[in-house]
Amino acid sequence: MISSEQVKELRERTGAGIMDCKKALAEADGDMEKAVVILRERGLAKAAKKAGREAKEGIIDSYIHGGGRIGVLLEVNCETDFVARNDEFKSLVKDLAMQIAAANPKYIKREDVPAEIIENEKQILRTQAINEGKPEHVVDKIVEGRLEKFFEENCLLEQPFIKDPDRKVSQIIMEKIALLGENITVSRFVRFEKGEMDTASKV
Amino acid sequence: MISSEQVKELRERTGAGIMDCKKALAEADGDMEKAVVILRERGLAKAAKKAGREAKEGIIDSYIHGGGRIGVLLEVNCETDFVARNDEFKSLVKDLAMQIAAANPKYIKREDVPAEIIENEKQILRTQAINEGKPEHVVDKIVEGRLEKFFEENCLLEQPFIKDPDRKVSQIIMEKIALLGENITVSRFVRFEKGEMDTASKV
Repeated sequence: MISSEQVKELRERTGAGIMDCKKALAEADGDMEKAVVILRERGLAKAAKKAGREAKEGIIDSYIHGGGRIGVLLEVNCETDFVARNDEFKSLVKDLAMQIAAANPKYIKREDVPAEIIENEKQILRTQAINEGKPEHVVDKIVEGRLEKFFEENCLLEQPFIKDPDRKVSQIIMEKIALLGENITVSRFVRFEKGEMDTASKV
Repeated sequence: MISSEQVKELRERTGAGIMDCKKALAEADGDMEKAVVILRERGLAKAAKKAGREAKEGIIDSYIHGGGRIGVLLEVNCETDFVARNDEFKSLVKDLAMQIAAANPKYIKREDVPAEIIENEKQILRTQAINEGKPEHVVDKIVEGRLEKFFEENCLLEQPFIKDPDRKVSQIIMEKIALLGENITVSRFVRFEKGEMDTASKV
């Protein structure tokens, strides 16, 4: 069965008519991507648009440091347009952009760090501890401790806030959530540094 | 043999001393990544820094549209700091950021489009042409023509310039190259649109 939600999504993505979308979805057995291809092949759709459902409110902001040496782009989401326009919200977003420029996090939260990166890090920290002559029975504890430090350095939400290093970035966000009464999430960011060979971290 | 360039790069990446770097490189048979791991395991290096050789001049700039609905971050490179500070160069960068915000390119140039995307596009265009009843012997020509249109829509350098659609973006850049006497290249960009589910294109 083809649901009306599917038809709606296909229409949004292709701009094709309702009946054409229904037919394409039926032929594609409900497979959205296949249905897009079918409509395009029949000249009934423009080039596929991104599956970008505009679900959330919030703003995209940027911060350029050092006359163009470092640049940050980030998106912070909230629940209503009302909060998105609030100065307290905007100043939080600006602070987060500066935080990313200055402290160079690679991820938003620790759950975003790929398992193989953590495994690799653990192995290095383990060999390091052994080379330092730490007794075998405390090595695991030391590795755990240093891994915490790794998360603190590399995950935005766990970093000490540059304007007040006694508090974590996550606390700063929590305070704004309490103040504004809406959930606030950092959904993505990129950071460019001039002349980097590889592309910047991206979440 | 370990070259002095390798030692220099390893020092830049790890902050370790010259002798430690030489030894680590020798043990790693010249493998840079392995040498970084060796130094870290011995506690002689901080967490690996990015292999970011600051080879080029230029600037990173951003453009935020619609009060935070769309954001663009881009890096444009030139040869000297002198040109990077020039107003003509800066205004080109600003124009390119606005171009990306408005015209939503996915790639910088056609060489950046992955082969499988082109193959997929060709197949759709071919089926489309056949469904339109075009005779088999002209289908290839039609596909080629429509593929050109695809590049023009999706590659920044081939897009019509938003401020003067009779000229391509590449022409605008060429004119600044002629004016400023230095090569100018767009090395990367990202574009965020509020509430997109998937991450934006990145080069």
